[in-house]
Amino acid sequence: MSEKKKIYKPSPISGFPEWTPDVRLVEQQWLDHIRAVFESYGYCNIETPAIEALEVIAAKGEDVDKEIYVLERLQADEDDKKEARLALHFDQTVPLARYVAQHFNDLIFPFKRYQMQKVWRGERPQAGRFREFYQCDIDVINVDNLPLHFDAEMPAIIWQILSSLPGMEDEKIQIRISNRKILLGWLEHLGVENQIDVIRIVDKVEKLDSNKILHLLEETGITRDTAEEILKVGQTKVTRKEDVLKIAPQMQGTGSLMQEGIEELAFVMDQLSHLPEGAVVADLSIVRGLDYYTGTVYETVFVDDPGYGSICSGGRYDDLASNYINKKLPGVGISIGFSRLFARILQKQQLPTGKHSPADIMVVMPNEEQRGVATETANILRGKGLNVELAHGGKLKKQLATAEKKGIPYIWFPPFEDGLPHEVKDMSSGEQTEADPAQWTPKKES
Amino acid sequence: MSEKKKIYKPSPISGFPEWTPDVRLVEQQWLDHIRAVFESYGYCNIETPAIEALEVIAAKGEDVDKEIYVLERLQADEDDKKEARLALHFDQTVPLARYVAQHFNDLIFPFKRYQMQKVWRGERPQAGRFREFYQCDIDVINVDNLPLHFDAEMPAIIWQILSSLPGMEDEKIQIRISNRKILLGWLEHLGVENQIDVIRIVDKVEKLDSNKILHLLEETGITRDTAEEILKVGQTKVTRKEDVLKIAPQMQGTGSLMQEGIEELAFVMDQLSHLPEGAVVADLSIVRGLDYYTGTVYETVFVDDPGYGSICSGGRYDDLASNYINKKLPGVGISIGFSRLFARILQKQQLPTGKHSPADIMVVMPNEEQRGVATETANILRGKGLNVELAHGGKLKKQLATAEKKGIPYIWFPPFEDGLPHEVKDMSSGEQTEADPAQWTPKKES
Repeated sequence: MSEKKKIYKPSPISGFPEWTPDVRLVEQQWLDHIRAVFESYGYCNIETPAIEALEVIAAKGEDVDKEIYVLERLQADEDDKKEARLALHFDQTVPLARYVAQHFNDLIFPFKRYQMQKVWRGERPQAGRFREFYQCDIDVINVDNLPLHFDAEMPAIIWQILSSLPGMEDEKIQIRISNRKILLGWLEHLGVENQIDVIRIVDKVEKLDSNKILHLLEETGITRDTAEEILKVGQTKVTRKEDVLKIAPQMQGTGSLMQEGIEELAFVMDQLSHLPEGAVVADLSIVRGLDYYTGTVYETVFVDDPGYGSICSGGRYDDLASNYINKKLPGVGISIGFSRLFARILQKQQLPTGKHSPADIMVVMPNEEQRGVATETANILRGKGLNVELAHGGKLKKQLATAEKKGIPYIWFPPFEDGLPHEVKDMSSGEQTEADPAQWTPKKES
Repeated sequence: MSEKKKIYKPSPISGFPEWTPDVRLVEQQWLDHIRAVFESYGYCNIETPAIEALEVIAAKGEDVDKEIYVLERLQADEDDKKEARLALHFDQTVPLARYVAQHFNDLIFPFKRYQMQKVWRGERPQAGRFREFYQCDIDVINVDNLPLHFDAEMPAIIWQILSSLPGMEDEKIQIRISNRKILLGWLEHLGVENQIDVIRIVDKVEKLDSNKILHLLEETGITRDTAEEILKVGQTKVTRKEDVLKIAPQMQGTGSLMQEGIEELAFVMDQLSHLPEGAVVADLSIVRGLDYYTGTVYETVFVDDPGYGSICSGGRYDDLASNYINKKLPGVGISIGFSRLFARILQKQQLPTGKHSPADIMVVMPNEEQRGVATETANILRGKGLNVELAHGGKLKKQLATAEKKGIPYIWFPPFEDGLPHEVKDMSSGEQTEADPAQWTPKKES
């Protein structure tokens, strides 16, 4: 090019992932799969604006506050100051609470909703940390009280999703379930005062060795004996309802908080007994958010790589939206950290490769005179629900090369002249056969 | 509730629409429909981050700059200043240009992509103006040159989408096509110097009466005769290729810019002759963006309400990404203003009402003892690809009322006790029949 023009060479911004079309195609498959399973359980979708009033989302005073992105118009003026300050949402739970409060009279309870949107967090630039990422959340909210069987529906849904993600069928996952009442009740029974510190230590039972855990527990001011009892509870992992009920048998029948937690956990495990062995495990080291959850809690790990961290977490809460409405709204929910989950398949390089197009068929033509019949053929095939790309033109050889590069599985040859048959070529077998566009269907993938 | 708690009553923020689940269900259907048609033509999807470097998107110095939302972390510190300033994208074209430049070596050309994301513009709060809205874009980009038949593919795709939107089948739409070379060539031929002002006036031919247009044209300094010739061209509306070729016959065969535009427009109209009468019209008052488009231009209106404005616009450009890469990348694209389009069905109150759930069936149970068989039944039905909600529990009457409120079309009654049959009730007919969950299928909607 002869003219001289200033070129700004763009480069990726840390934390904002972006995929080439072949990778995006798989990401779409995953999102479609998740949506289909959510809907198969009758959950409705909502979408909230990416932007909320800062006052709504920053009400918590928690750590996340410093990661909130606030917005300002590039050329802000006096009028802007009269409006509420706006910010990007950092999760879908706060917006859900605001949504339920705002639309309370228009919702049908139990309100079963799923939500799959991007959220933003202004974290430090760091490899593997996303600042824009997808969450796929599912929650059930009810007024005043919510039946416990919903606590079992969450892991059933998640298991179905994660055990059949395209390209990840070989990856073993496990959902770990606990009930916060058990540990809290136990600490109460033991007379432990510094419960929050102790809970934080129990959260590390999987990561640190036992002596280290005992040492940390003693540092909080409790005796070695008590520390050992706590460690024993924290190390409990069982899969059958009967074994859940055997946790701390000396507590049975006391009507205590711990007993309540054990019975709830046993009920949830019982409801999930139809899942394959190892799919779910009752694991009392699971603690999750300190203030928010009040009963069942979930984490989900890759069995062969628990250090990757939880890819799907959640739990039961007593009170979703009391910041925004004077109603008691208990709920249970779980959130798939979609972008971290998707990063896994990229990390393992298991991505089904090569498809740069959703097309099933490319219709080609030896020269532009055939464009009319080629267009007609493409439209017939589309009418049958197939995705059909019409070749851009140019030499036939180049058209075929483009189809192959894009990974399009069939090439369609309309007749060169009237009276000749159509032909279609299966790119995987190389076989080329006569075909009628009105009748033809692709082979089912095995 | 006895405790006293500060409640922040949330209210909608102007320009950030949010729907209840019944409306969102229709919005999803529309988005799914659009995606399906885009893919049926073999276009691949890309998604770019909502956030770009401000330097990338604000490079233009155009009016839109003042509407850009820039971001800042709530608790920004010195480190933040070392990073690029970030902003929300205001369209999908600038991000596409940046994307194509950045991933140039990994893309397959002609690059046919669709993109359906939200964009943000910090407009003044005003009824009917969105500050967060969906755009559904489709573009084809090639290196050095791009065949003209793609200019005809755009309206064919858009026609298929807009003529079969669920709930909008009765709304007549029309795609209006012109070619900027015609008017520019004509003005050149007439020796008009103040072309930009004249083009802005021609853009109003549909809205103002002829005398007003002539008056405005004369005000730019041209003679009454020239004004009348320009008006005549601007008022040209024809539907057949032959009539396009008759525009300004005195210009035929001159090889001029105008002649080129007429031939291109005639070719595009000819390629679209299979569409129903009135679907597309060659309308020389269509002008669009002054600097960007170089050939074919499109607008789309509701025939019964052209004042609603264009719901889908675009055109051909010579040079997508020369700000970011030293390549000539011509393209043609069109963008559905999805949120404005969707606002139409809400405005007309044509929304298919009542469905608050994607469920085909609700499985109910007279009491909790049936939960086991009800769960099993639900899983069998889901295994057949149906969406099934399991009732929350409580009194049967309340379960049925919930199903009805949600608009779920079938109620499933598992057997009360072993040996009895399953039954299913069609809520539209009221008919209740025995059924086997492994065999049953819902009636096809007519």
